[in-house]
Order: sequence, then C-alpha cells, then structure tokens
Amino acid sequence: MRSTVKAEGVLELSLVSIPTPEPGPDEVVVRVEAAPLNPSDLGLLFASAEPAAMQAATGADGLPVVRASLSPEAMRGLASRLDQAMPVGNEGAGVVIAAGSGNNAQALLGKTVSIIGGATYSQYRVMHFGQCQPLPEGTTPAEGASWFVNPMTALGMIETMRREGHSALVHTAAASNLGQMLVKACLADDVQLVNIVRKAEQAATLRALGAKYVCDSSSPAFMDELVEALAATSATIAFDAIGGGKLASQILTAMEIAASRKMDAFSRYGSSTFKQVYIYGMLDRSPTTLHRNFGFSWAVSGWLLTPFLQKAGGETVGKLRARVANELKTTFASTYARHISLREALDPKVIAAYGKQATGEKYLITPHV
Amino acid sequence: MRSTVKAEGVLELSLVSIPTPEPGPDEVVVRVEAAPLNPSDLGLLFASAEPAAMQAATGADGLPVVRASLSPEAMRGLASRLDQAMPVGNEGAGVVIAAGSGNNAQALLGKTVSIIGGATYSQYRVMHFGQCQPLPEGTTPAEGASWFVNPMTALGMIETMRREGHSALVHTAAASNLGQMLVKACLADDVQLVNIVRKAEQAATLRALGAKYVCDSSSPAFMDELVEALAATSATIAFDAIGGGKLASQILTAMEIAASRKMDAFSRYGSSTFKQVYIYGMLDRSPTTLHRNFGFSWAVSGWLLTPFLQKAGGETVGKLRARVANELKTTFASTYARHISLREALDPKVIAAYGKQATGEKYLITPHV
Repeated sequence: MRSTVKAEGVLELSLVSIPTPEPGPDEVVVRVEAAPLNPSDLGLLFASAEPAAMQAATGADGLPVVRASLSPEAMRGLASRLDQAMPVGNEGAGVVIAAGSGNNAQALLGKTVSIIGGATYSQYRVMHFGQCQPLPEGTTPAEGASWFVNPMTALGMIETMRREGHSALVHTAAASNLGQMLVKACLADDVQLVNIVRKAEQAATLRALGAKYVCDSSSPAFMDELVEALAATSATIAFDAIGGGKLASQILTAMEIAASRKMDAFSRYGSSTFKQVYIYGMLDRSPTTLHRNFGFSWAVSGWLLTPFLQKAGGETVGKLRARVANELKTTFASTYARHISLREALDPKVIAAYGKQATGEKYLITPHV
Repeated sequence: MRSTVKAEGVLELSLVSIPTPEPGPDEVVVRVEAAPLNPSDLGLLFASAEPAAMQAATGADGLPVVRASLSPEAMRGLASRLDQAMPVGNEGAGVVIAAGSGNNAQALLGKTVSIIGGATYSQYRVMHFGQCQPLPEGTTPAEGASWFVNPMTALGMIETMRREGHSALVHTAAASNLGQMLVKACLADDVQLVNIVRKAEQAATLRALGAKYVCDSSSPAFMDELVEALAATSATIAFDAIGGGKLASQILTAMEIAASRKMDAFSRYGSSTFKQVYIYGMLDRSPTTLHRNFGFSWAVSGWLLTPFLQKAGGETVGKLRARVANELKTTFASTYARHISLREALDPKVIAAYGKQATGEKYLITPHV
C-alpha cells in the first residue's frame, strides 16, 4: 500500500504489485499475516486529508486507488513528501518463509514473528533479523501484530517516569488500547496510575480491568476528583494523547493544588514540585492553552517513542521487547473491531469507518485474506 | 516596608519602625543605601492588586500607609500569606557598619557590599556574611544595587544554554535592563543571541549596544525575520519574559522551520532538533497558546533563578557573583528612571508610575535620602 501527496494538491492511496527482493545474509522474508491501523499509521496514510472524503478511482491492473483533495495550508506542511509513493504500516506479524545465509536470519526460518520498521501493509516484507521478534509457541500473528507501537509506548511511559524521578503517572484518553495496556502494566509493576477518560462508560471499562483512579473529564466534578487522585498518588508526570485544548493545563493546575497542600509557607512562585506533561498524541489538533497558575516548576513537552528508545539503549529495548512478546495474550492483548483485507482498507466506506479513530474501534489488516 | 494581605480582602503597604537586632557571630549590619524595584519585588508587594488603585491612609507614628482592595479570585491564590506583614525587597547595596565576632563577618566591616536575601527596602539590615558581596573600590551602592536578580538571571540563561547542549539563545522583552545586560554578556562571551522586542525604538537601543539579531514582534515581517535569525544562529533555546499569548509558540514554529531547512527527508513527526522555550516572567498573564506545528521534539517550561542556582552549585554561583561585581559599571550596569525614598515608594502617584513596569522606567529606592 502506498500514500502519495501529488503536487497538484491530491492525496492518492493505492496498492502496487512489486517483486519480493531476495533477502541479504542478515535478512528474512516475512509473509505478513496481520498489521494494525494505528493512529500513527493513519497520520502518514491520510497526510491531512479528511478520511471520509476519499473517493474511489480506477487503478492500473484493476488494483484499487482512492483520492482526496488537500487544502493549500495542508500542502505547505507536506512539501518534503511531494510525489513520493510512501509505503505505509509501522508494525505487524507473520511467518518467516525464507532467510538469508547468516545465522541470525537462519534461526528465524519458519518462526512466527512480530515485525517493526515500516511498509507492513504488504503481503511479503524483507526485513533485517533485528526488526523481527520471535513469538512464543501458540501466539498467533493476529495476537502479535500490535506488539510494538502501543506496548512499547506503555512501557516507555513507565520507564520515563522512573528515569525522570517521578513515582506515579497520569494518562489521558486512557480507555484506548494503549491505555488499557498501561492499566495492566502498572498493576503488574505496582505503579500508581491516574486515568483520565472522556466518557462515563470508558471509566467503567478501566475499572473492570482493575484501575483504581479514573477521572472523567466530562464530569462537573472532574477537577476535584483529579486533585484528589493526584494527592493520593503523588503523580507528577502525565502522558497526554489529546494535545489540544486545556487538559494539559488542567493537569498541571491539579498537580500544583495537590503539591501545595503539602507546603507550609507561602511562595508566590508556586510549589517547588516539578510537574511534567508530555504530549505524545494529536487527537485534538487545536492549540494547547496553558493557564499558568501552577508556579514555575513545570514543563510541557513533546514525547515520541523512537527518540525515547534511542536514549534508553539497546539493552533496555531488548528487555522491553521480550517482556511484550511473553505477555501478548495478557498485559498487551489488543482487540480489533474488524479484520480487513488490503483491498477493503482502500474502500471509501471502510476508510470512513477506521478513519474516525474512535476508541475501541481499531482495525486489523490481514493481507492474505 | 511591609506588604500585608488582610483577610477582609485588602492589600496594605506600610512602613514600620523596628529596632535593628545585634548581629550574630557570622552576621553583619548593613546600612542599606540603594535597593531596586524589580518586577519580582512588585509581584510580592502588590499581590494581585492594581498599583494605580492604591489609596493613602493614615498610619501609626505618621508613617505612610496605602491600601487597595483585592478581588475574590485574587484572594483565593493568597490564602497562605493572609495577615502576614511580609518584608519586601530582594536585593540592594550598602555599607557594613557593624559586624559579628566571626572572621568572615569582621572582614566585611566598613566595606561597600551588595546584598541578597529579602527585606532590603529597609534602612538597616542584619545579614549573614554569605549574603553580602564586597564591591570593588570605586563602585557605589547605587551601582551595586541591582547586582543579583538581573545579572545572575542573564548569566544563568547563558549557563543553562551551555549545560543543556544548546549553542545560541533567544530572549524576549529584550530591551529591558536584563535584556541589555544579556546583550553585553553574550558579546563578551561570544555567544549568538536573537533579541525579540515589541517596538522599533527598542530594536535601535539594542543595536546601539552591538546586538546583531533584533526582531520586532510588532513588524509584519516578524516571523520571516525570526526564522532567518534562528537559521543564522542555530539558536534552539529561548527565555521568554512575557509568558502569555502566542510568542512562545511562534518561537518554536520558527525554530522548527529553521531546523527543517537542514533536513533531507520527510518526517511527519517533525525535525529531531530539540527546541526549548523557558518562561521566566509574567509580563502577560493571559494563557500561553501553543499551535503545535513544530513536531514532537520540544518543551515549554517554567524557569526560575533560585532553583537554577541550587542546581548549579556553590562554586559556579561564586564565580558568577564575582564576575558580576567586577563588571557592575560595564556589562551589568543598570539605569534608573528615578531615585525615590521609602516614603515616596508609598506615595500613590509614585506607585502608579513604577507600577506600570514600563521598559526603561525602573526605580531605585534610596532609604536614607
């Protein structure tokens, strides 16, 4: 599958048929059996086009093509990908059906593996052995498809919390697949977690998983409940998937109120408790508004998985990957609303459905079905 | 001088007459000759009251008293200082007229010293020897009064830039006393500095000091000029005195545009160049609005001098203090619009003037005139 931003202001999604290259000595050929449609994939796939506006066209060889127009503002931010047919799909899982001559590649032959590294919305993918994680006996490709982006992000949040000297954390859009994994991982690790959701039924989902602190931002009592949860947990770091609006600011304000309860003297510079909000998602693309009534000991920053993993180093990453592989049926289990073929993934009606990115409505591509 | 927030919702500023205590072995008595009215002092002095609204009342012993009412919202943030008569004035300079028995205290006897540590809007002040910095022969108290808050902040910014791996910096409200010091300190240290001012005449002031990059945020070409200055200097850290509005966001956007010119491949997560804006002032108390079109490698954080100095440690602080003392007539020279007495500092008309905090309109209190 390819996503192309054309110079005339059109986004085109298409399927192309290309020969599978011979693997090099350290490479393997993976028959891709399953690959999830993550928000991070949809960003690359749709550029800034409206998913519901995609219209079917006729492609070469009877392969599907869909197109939508891009606004001039959107085009300005896309200059560096003009007229490049970009392969899509960050992760997935499948079976190693051929391997290069090297020992590491040969060791994977016949194995079911999870993969990371792009272009996974393909039927076959040649990859370096290091991009493959062998799965335990009995774990299927569908179970292993969402092994990296969400699970490693959840573990990366806990790891970041520890490395930066915090002892409990906050997560927003907490009912997502990722959020549910984080609830389970925090329970396993005995880390206190404050979950922020946007609907009452999402709170119930998380409580059923064992979440102790769930605050519903649509409730009139939200700020009071958040302050109490922060005071109880001493959480001073938050990971925010939403980004826009006032939620990051509300979290910092509530952290400051919780921190100032422990102060015995007035300081007009606020508490000395350092409060961090990391924005890692873009569910709301509107501006972030900070009402700076939380002193001077705070930061709002961007957070991305890849730079975190680079900083953490190979040994840590290896440990985290192995943990995920072993817990794919429990802590890191994903659920999908629907399995779709590559052709269905380019059907305008199906695109409109998965393009909504509704919580609990994640799709899985099964390229050989 | 005292600032008191009364439970009934009134701010009261007053002068009180108290005996000067005997100095302990490590303490000295300083006859305060000069103390500046810094923005940080005015914050404590006025709580959230409107300076122009202060009205004269009659105090005990014929000493002046002025009062203003505080809004219920303001009162909520002031609960922890209710009915405490808080002494005002962070820094100043004077002459040591008595000293405790310890060697360090005795060594200061008769010396002209700069002081730091609160309650400097006083005629006499007992201080630990460590809060005093002896001034070079020929430096007057008026020249040494603004030795800490602004100069140490300017040097703290350069030091923070170096410690956090940046090579050039951005400063806003750059025509302030502090901004002018920073221009001179950066020239002396061969550090590239991008100055952002709000008026054309302020740009001229800074250029006259030798500033190479000055961008006027009131100019229609502001963003273009800022991008060019950031591209030329590779500045990736900014110190923002304003806080509210969109300036912090504009700086991050301009840094990202400058950084992306050096990229050869598209990344929808933006550049990997880390971009930092520190908000250290509150000239605009309105919300900070971040239009997150600058990727994920960024942070907006609060910055305060005191925690920075604690982190930097005693040896660094000692070096910075000694540098300031030696350059009080050059790099760290302050200019004042007016010298006023303690009584004048509580005159409603004078309060209305210095309460405006206009750039270039700083006042100096001379408590014995």
